[in-house]
Amino acid sequence: MTSRGNLVLMPNALDLGADEVPLADILPAGVMQRAAALAHWVAEDARSARALLKRVGAHFPLALPLQQIAIKELPRPRKGSREAVPAAEWAALLQPALDGHDIGLVSEAGLPAVADPGALLVAAAHEAGLTVLPLPGPSSLLLALAASGMNGQSFAFVGYLPQEPAARALRLRELEALSRRLGQTQILIETPYRNAALLATALEALAPATRLSISCGLTLVAGWTRSDRVSAWRARPQALPDKLPAVFCLLAG
Amino acid sequence: MTSRGNLVLMPNALDLGADEVPLADILPAGVMQRAAALAHWVAEDARSARALLKRVGAHFPLALPLQQIAIKELPRPRKGSREAVPAAEWAALLQPALDGHDIGLVSEAGLPAVADPGALLVAAAHEAGLTVLPLPGPSSLLLALAASGMNGQSFAFVGYLPQEPAARALRLRELEALSRRLGQTQILIETPYRNAALLATALEALAPATRLSISCGLTLVAGWTRSDRVSAWRARPQALPDKLPAVFCLLAG
Repeated sequence: MTSRGNLVLMPNALDLGADEVPLADILPAGVMQRAAALAHWVAEDARSARALLKRVGAHFPLALPLQQIAIKELPRPRKGSREAVPAAEWAALLQPALDGHDIGLVSEAGLPAVADPGALLVAAAHEAGLTVLPLPGPSSLLLALAASGMNGQSFAFVGYLPQEPAARALRLRELEALSRRLGQTQILIETPYRNAALLATALEALAPATRLSISCGLTLVAGWTRSDRVSAWRARPQALPDKLPAVFCLLAG
Repeated sequence: MTSRGNLVLMPNALDLGADEVPLADILPAGVMQRAAALAHWVAEDARSARALLKRVGAHFPLALPLQQIAIKELPRPRKGSREAVPAAEWAALLQPALDGHDIGLVSEAGLPAVADPGALLVAAAHEAGLTVLPLPGPSSLLLALAASGMNGQSFAFVGYLPQEPAARALRLRELEALSRRLGQTQILIETPYRNAALLATALEALAPATRLSISCGLTLVAGWTRSDRVSAWRARPQALPDKLPAVFCLLAG
């Protein structure tokens, strides 16, 4: 019996679309070394996976020349269809592990399968009896939560809000009520060019005493966190960059 | 005007009470370097902070001899009292930053202020107008979530469950119902010696189709994740170590 490979969850940097930070500032050397040894990858985006490997290769020699490393992309969700990805597609992606090779899973930023595609591949790996090995790296969600000073003993990540302003305001008030009832920090994200719109709605919709923390471009040189009551955000408005990812945390006061 | 220091959120390893892992496998070199440069610390536990600095010192020379580095402990929650820690205590802890020195905040494991004390100091830092700088490192919660293959687009960390078996079962069913309604992964933790008791209650209380993932000792050599339906956990029981921290994730099927 051939011994099986593992599914290795490989963190990525958080500098997609921004000035590159030194990889040694955000990834452990052992994690880079492990990435350098992999010849099989599944990626949210092959191009950004290749870019990461190139950066890793500057620290540790890659097992194979970059062009010979197999990088397959995760199946994209079917537009307008709730149909599941056929099991055969997951099986094909996992085949190298069944043949005894470790496979890396990587997303465009941060940890794969967290606020990112990839969870279904991880689930398929468990069903196939493969070992799943998550490697430590940066997560903008938890860095933002830690930096917010809000409740870190109870929190929820709720993803994206509706785009339509009235629906977005309604959802924000719903999250604020939930936060008040449970004492739970609510974490949300938005596409960078909608950061300013989300902040504007939040300042209208939320109660003055509710705390709102925004972390922008975490791990980047330009990164910052501001954690303040809604009343203080209103009194001292702040423009949000439209190209840097932001994480919003709120806790009802 | 003196320029102010930052409050630097320093991640710790996840090997407390276990065999030490090489620090280079779990912390970025840049993060260790930054830790080595700090002369002022606030820690959940001074002894474990000193142990971390000693390990860091093997990679990067510390700014001062270890005994000269100031390590103050976070105020412990007042037993049997809901009284808040007096603001003066936070101010005293933050004084070095007001005097222009960076302060590191570190907990016993993982990211400070996440499932750990420290959030109130971070909040006090924001109130004092200090910059809070979270550094990337391992978080057992998010590693467990990524490794579970469950929904990473919507999840909640709910902390510890009640210890009394009937109340614990009730809470588990409540979380399962919430997970079913919102499609939200529920993440919980337990003191290691109660891991087995929590698993036993979960296998009794949860529906057969609910998915349960347990990650034990993540980042350790002995670490593992098993993600299975409750029915499969029942059919193939598994003993949990009583000394390794475990993270439980559940998603209603």
